[in-house]
Amino acid sequence: MVERAMALGREAESMIRALALISAEEGHLTRLYLTPEHRLAADLVRRWMAEAGLDVSEDALGTVRGRLAPESGGRNSVQRLLIGSHIDTVIDAGAYDGALGVIAGILAVREVIKKHGRMPFGIDVLAFGDEEGSRFPATLLCSQAVAGRFDPASLQVESVDGVKLEDALRAYGKDPAEIPAAAYEPGEAVAYVELHIEQGPVLEQADEALGVVTAIASQSRHSVTVVGEAGHAGTVPMNLRRDALAAAAEVALAVETLAQRNADDFMVATIGKLSLSPGASNVIPARVVFTVDLRSQTDARRIEAMNWLREEILAIARRRRVTAWIERTHEAVARPCDPALQAGFATTIGRHGGKSAIHLPSGAGHDGQAVGAMCPIGMLFVRCRGGISHNPAEFTSVRDMGLAVAAMIKFIEGFDPARLGRLRRADD
Amino acid sequence: MVERAMALGREAESMIRALALISAEEGHLTRLYLTPEHRLAADLVRRWMAEAGLDVSEDALGTVRGRLAPESGGRNSVQRLLIGSHIDTVIDAGAYDGALGVIAGILAVREVIKKHGRMPFGIDVLAFGDEEGSRFPATLLCSQAVAGRFDPASLQVESVDGVKLEDALRAYGKDPAEIPAAAYEPGEAVAYVELHIEQGPVLEQADEALGVVTAIASQSRHSVTVVGEAGHAGTVPMNLRRDALAAAAEVALAVETLAQRNADDFMVATIGKLSLSPGASNVIPARVVFTVDLRSQTDARRIEAMNWLREEILAIARRRRVTAWIERTHEAVARPCDPALQAGFATTIGRHGGKSAIHLPSGAGHDGQAVGAMCPIGMLFVRCRGGISHNPAEFTSVRDMGLAVAAMIKFIEGFDPARLGRLRRADD
Repeated sequence: MVERAMALGREAESMIRALALISAEEGHLTRLYLTPEHRLAADLVRRWMAEAGLDVSEDALGTVRGRLAPESGGRNSVQRLLIGSHIDTVIDAGAYDGALGVIAGILAVREVIKKHGRMPFGIDVLAFGDEEGSRFPATLLCSQAVAGRFDPASLQVESVDGVKLEDALRAYGKDPAEIPAAAYEPGEAVAYVELHIEQGPVLEQADEALGVVTAIASQSRHSVTVVGEAGHAGTVPMNLRRDALAAAAEVALAVETLAQRNADDFMVATIGKLSLSPGASNVIPARVVFTVDLRSQTDARRIEAMNWLREEILAIARRRRVTAWIERTHEAVARPCDPALQAGFATTIGRHGGKSAIHLPSGAGHDGQAVGAMCPIGMLFVRCRGGISHNPAEFTSVRDMGLAVAAMIKFIEGFDPARLGRLRRADD
Repeated sequence: MVERAMALGREAESMIRALALISAEEGHLTRLYLTPEHRLAADLVRRWMAEAGLDVSEDALGTVRGRLAPESGGRNSVQRLLIGSHIDTVIDAGAYDGALGVIAGILAVREVIKKHGRMPFGIDVLAFGDEEGSRFPATLLCSQAVAGRFDPASLQVESVDGVKLEDALRAYGKDPAEIPAAAYEPGEAVAYVELHIEQGPVLEQADEALGVVTAIASQSRHSVTVVGEAGHAGTVPMNLRRDALAAAAEVALAVETLAQRNADDFMVATIGKLSLSPGASNVIPARVVFTVDLRSQTDARRIEAMNWLREEILAIARRRRVTAWIERTHEAVARPCDPALQAGFATTIGRHGGKSAIHLPSGAGHDGQAVGAMCPIGMLFVRCRGGISHNPAEFTSVRDMGLAVAAMIKFIEGFDPARLGRLRRADD
């Protein structure tokens, strides 16, 4: 069994390598949405899907779909399991983010076909094109379209190279008028699952190859501005200062404490950007601007936490006689993973590892956030070295990839749309 | 009396305005060392000194000196009271910093001559040329030379416009070989006093026009680097983070607490510059670099405080599993003001204000730091609006300047080199 997994891992690795060669820059991996590189990558994925025995098509946003029809003589309406991930990358990316999910889906379905032919349900493997948002100031458009949630206003967004999405689609050979046809029929998609590298250190720290995702985090980003008063570092006594940086430092520790106190929720809070002015070593800072990135497993916990933080920031500002204001710049609601799908993945991991499966949230965003508006979602995380992602140093071992593909095969074999519904009702 | 002070204040104001017109940029005040503007300002000061009845000369570093000889028939060796400040400015400066001290000195000595002719001691009014260090990466060279502490190595420093000090001096018409002659003979200078705007908010807060300086602060500047580990803001749990900014925030509050705990020493500590990397809102900061400016009335207290802070920074770093290192980039020893000179100034203020005089340290550096290596020093601070300095908004009222000149007159009238010596001995 491990021998078989290793062989699948080696195959995944060689496909990862092949896909990683398709880049806008030699020696670096950069593959943005609707570029010539995207086209080449999509064509390679189409070939792999066809070789695996899938019927290949492409929708009006460029999502590649490899379809396995269900056994004939089943129910009246077709029920499909969706397995997806994305083939676009960030700039100077690693080779595994997104690509592994698409490749693992193709390999797993190929093995299922070899062993079982068709299944009682249909399977679609999806390769989305814009998860990273590196070219257009919008993300998950492909998965939104599949879920029937595409907003036509998005067609007007402009890329970093000054091209409207609408025009980029036409140049890619697509007709924006056909986007609505990308959506599944109601009830057709019964579940969406995705295999993805963790992009964090939890599995590595726990010495586990795979982990079951509990939810894609609820997320907000705020910009905080603190304004105090500049002054000579040598001549203004401490008790007369209105030091914007000292106030910001207090806020930074409050942000950290907030997340630590909500560890049961896997809450994380980060100040990733901070700038101050005037910015001379002998001048008291008058103004500090910083970001607060806050993520939680649930929207309620995140909103409650942000309300607490807002009060705390204003209290710190009052106490220090500085002014603070807080502006929300981004928000994404949580997408919990379906308990039955989590249980399904946990069982497949259990079979391979011996230990009970690790459960962890996804702090990063994924296509499941969009597809989750249509159907239950589930995610399987694969360990990546050092938790490093969005970086050429991104790495996942052949063994771990093999275990991941094997787990996906078992998951498909054990998948039962009826059981999914029953578990979900039991959970209500 | 107040009428007389107001007249002197108006005169000081008109001289301040005249000097402020001599600038490298129209509409802004910028007057750097050994520039054509310096020459014009020195010439105006020379004229004022001559009109006041002083013998004018200039030393090899460009310091202008207006001399009043002592009454004849005195002691064998001449004893002189030095009154000085500087006529260079920062870039886009205010009009009062430095200039007021020179002008007040000239006006006060003029009034003393009118009333008393000569005094039992000689008086030199000094207009130094490089207190701000805005052109050359060195300061107080003029006052060092007067104190016999000029380091010939300084001749090789290069200005921001790429000129060696040695060449700039020659272009200004000076011979560097004559610098040693700028120094006073041993015992000749019995005291150095300076009148200067406070550049801080203490006098304004206390509703006092004048204050007696206790010491020019002991000062150090350090650069602190904290290195943690970058990571995805959504995927690295709080307990696995090594966030360089969170560590820096803790240090920032420790820096503030340290100075607050040493309020009896007027200690001030400032983080005026801070930068972090990578600096993306969704990436945990890996590296933060910031400055720590620390000032105290005594070197011992400052060194003790910095030792405590160093230990604290390293303890924070250990606890947070980040690396921190601390590098000293600047240090200036404290220069306490002579108790007898402080008492002399306190008496003159008392006569005008009714209340007992305010005593405060100078957090900013001054020429007295250099001259203090040769003889006792004293300083009188004048209130400036909002504590603002090094800024076009710098402002001191006519009334306050008048009170300052009047206090300086009284100080000179009450000055007794013998008493100075007695008080100093009593203080040992």
